[in-house]
Amino acid sequence: MEKILAHIDANIDASLGRLFELLRIPSISAQPAHRQDCLDAANWALTALREMGFTARLSETTGLPGVVAQNHEAGPDAPHVLFYGHYDVQPPDPLALWHSDPFDPQLVDGPRGKRIVARGAVDDKGQVVSFFEACRAHLAINGKLPVRLTVLLEGEEECGSPSLHQLLTQERETLAADFVLIADTNMWNPETPAITISLRGLAAVEVTLKAASRDLHSGLYGGIALNPINALTRILGDLQDDQGKIRIPHFYDGVAPVPDKLSQSWATLGFDGQAFLGEVGLASPAGEHGQSPLAQLWARPTADINGIYGGYQGEGTKTVIPALATAKLTFRLVPGQDPQVVVRNFERFVIERLRPDAHVAFKHQGATPGFAMNPDAPFMRAAQAALSAEFGKPAALIGSGASIPIVESFKTILGLDCLLAGFGLDDDRIHSPNEKFDLACFHRGTRAHARLLTAFKSILD
Amino acid sequence: MEKILAHIDANIDASLGRLFELLRIPSISAQPAHRQDCLDAANWALTALREMGFTARLSETTGLPGVVAQNHEAGPDAPHVLFYGHYDVQPPDPLALWHSDPFDPQLVDGPRGKRIVARGAVDDKGQVVSFFEACRAHLAINGKLPVRLTVLLEGEEECGSPSLHQLLTQERETLAADFVLIADTNMWNPETPAITISLRGLAAVEVTLKAASRDLHSGLYGGIALNPINALTRILGDLQDDQGKIRIPHFYDGVAPVPDKLSQSWATLGFDGQAFLGEVGLASPAGEHGQSPLAQLWARPTADINGIYGGYQGEGTKTVIPALATAKLTFRLVPGQDPQVVVRNFERFVIERLRPDAHVAFKHQGATPGFAMNPDAPFMRAAQAALSAEFGKPAALIGSGASIPIVESFKTILGLDCLLAGFGLDDDRIHSPNEKFDLACFHRGTRAHARLLTAFKSILD
Repeated sequence: MEKILAHIDANIDASLGRLFELLRIPSISAQPAHRQDCLDAANWALTALREMGFTARLSETTGLPGVVAQNHEAGPDAPHVLFYGHYDVQPPDPLALWHSDPFDPQLVDGPRGKRIVARGAVDDKGQVVSFFEACRAHLAINGKLPVRLTVLLEGEEECGSPSLHQLLTQERETLAADFVLIADTNMWNPETPAITISLRGLAAVEVTLKAASRDLHSGLYGGIALNPINALTRILGDLQDDQGKIRIPHFYDGVAPVPDKLSQSWATLGFDGQAFLGEVGLASPAGEHGQSPLAQLWARPTADINGIYGGYQGEGTKTVIPALATAKLTFRLVPGQDPQVVVRNFERFVIERLRPDAHVAFKHQGATPGFAMNPDAPFMRAAQAALSAEFGKPAALIGSGASIPIVESFKTILGLDCLLAGFGLDDDRIHSPNEKFDLACFHRGTRAHARLLTAFKSILD
Repeated sequence: MEKILAHIDANIDASLGRLFELLRIPSISAQPAHRQDCLDAANWALTALREMGFTARLSETTGLPGVVAQNHEAGPDAPHVLFYGHYDVQPPDPLALWHSDPFDPQLVDGPRGKRIVARGAVDDKGQVVSFFEACRAHLAINGKLPVRLTVLLEGEEECGSPSLHQLLTQERETLAADFVLIADTNMWNPETPAITISLRGLAAVEVTLKAASRDLHSGLYGGIALNPINALTRILGDLQDDQGKIRIPHFYDGVAPVPDKLSQSWATLGFDGQAFLGEVGLASPAGEHGQSPLAQLWARPTADINGIYGGYQGEGTKTVIPALATAKLTFRLVPGQDPQVVVRNFERFVIERLRPDAHVAFKHQGATPGFAMNPDAPFMRAAQAALSAEFGKPAALIGSGASIPIVESFKTILGLDCLLAGFGLDDDRIHSPNEKFDLACFHRGTRAHARLLTAFKSILD
């Protein structure tokens, strides 16, 4: 292992040079004009993987192709790891806010040493290349990898992965690994690696209340005609109680309290809820009383109204009683909640509160359950040991307040669990101008990936 | 009196001819291109009034001029009546829905006999000319009017009377009458005249709740960050209780129950609340339990949210916790309520319910108190007797759910009470295509105006 790490340390400039090659390709998947650039990025990866001895090919889809590569020289009994990353990037706009060309990568000084600045520096080219470089070091020292490895790179992640389902389905046999390693998440802080072990799900529903057959003059009808905005606020105003609990019947059915062990480990993370909220002008955790800020963010379900509209929205006043009012809601869900049941219970909650003359219409707009990974699974334990060895402290076992749709795709289509262990930082400005990846993160990420590959060798024992 | 009425009957075709002259002038005050047409309509009225022996002139304003005319030959001891009408009309759009040119008046068959079809047929040219023709009949038979009369015609009523304040102020001495007769309202039904004896007032306020300093991702912040839409619905959802009562403290202070006598007279009007609501697709009076539909419309205050917006309003879903949410409210007020106090108590109602991190901003957007006229005032009693004589049944003493700003202007600027007795019908399509005035209403309106002039003769006795 030490030889491999020393090789990585000695070759960091060459690694960086290869990353810069990839960063120079403006593979913006959202913009059709950049289709060829996306293909160039895919081919860059093909070439890099083949150079390392992988069999590699493009897997065509109705959109941009996937890159599928394999190195199975570890032998048929070795664990099979599927690595997932993406070669596409977000558009760089607004360009004016960049301090350098987003596709001319720079190494500039930052408060924590050098940083790589470019679109895709961390999301996800930097993370992908750190993994490639770890493989390269293993191959340079040992001539083979410790595990059977399949690499899958997607080209449409920044567009919502419209072809991932097709890709996973058509490559089902090739991708039949023991688990998926995903390098597209962040560390807890610059000193502390992290493994994401839970994701909240999402159920989205739009509710429209209709009353009169047309907009009414509030002078002629006010007081006798049902106002659907009043009616809608009355119903939705009832969603939470004074303790921040959601009042939809059976909403918490199946929701387990945060296990004590996890809760205690979160307590050691030193999360400063005040500072977190302070950055966006807030001061008080607004969720369920009695739940820690991290539990509110990671482990408890929510009911947020993301949009509402009805009646007059211009300047001044219009004395109208509108015909309808609409709200868009999403529920962030945790493991144990069935998104369909949550939506159905919400609908019942609304219907039970309907006043005479209020007619309701619902639109369902997607539902994903929450995910919980087992931190004691062998690949998880192996990862924790490897990260601990690299960083000198245990990895934070964190939650994510948002869903990561690809995790659900791997689970539902391929039956695979995911290991979410990435080396970005929260201040990396992904999707924003001046995206960066700390050089130290790139370097230690490469070392950590090398250790992970070794650690995975024994997960089937 | 009979001679005067007979004169009106005998000359109805000539009266109609004069009305048609005025209807042919497209005096659309909202459209600058029609400014000359508006001046032509004012001058048409000047000429008509001078022909009848009035001294008449234009009263210039920063907008369109008023027409001010006087006939005081009844002598200094006679009561002084101020007649108010307007010579401007609404734009005729959408033109495609008219069955004939809006400015080429037609006499067409309708279910209740002939009807005059044109823009302004009833609002307000038909009503103004019916009054002029009543004066003409008095003058033809008696050579003078029974009262001192001042006529004031405004040219900007359809634009919200922006110059009325100036007009009333600069003509204060000329307009110093005993009361104002306004011919711009409707009968109760084709057989029953009406006097409007109460108007609801209006207080308008916009409320914005601000939370975070920017829009937040509900995956990253959901559960811990205050959602201002949730917070706003929670506050506004509390506006009414289960009985339809408004829960703002002191909201009903000063609100008197409908007097028994009035309540009983409303019960005789045969108002069909179900049918009234049925026309707009509703079935149930939505206001305070225990209040009749007419009381809900005319005599009880309201709290309507006329507009609400916040967050995402496009197709599909956006997982945003917005920075702010806004609602626009109007309160319809009844006599006894102080609009400023209502707004202040509403603000307190909101502020008391603010959750931590919710910051509120209010915009005041106008306030007018409710008005109640004394149906036993001498000019009111005189009017009731005159209308009863013409129609063979008592006038309905009705309320208006909406405010009529000119009534407040006459009261606050000139200290004058108004008599709202017009001869339109609810199906006259004012402001809409194919506006009409039943010929019978024009004819009986002229006769009724003639009787009113006579009846007013004795109001100072």
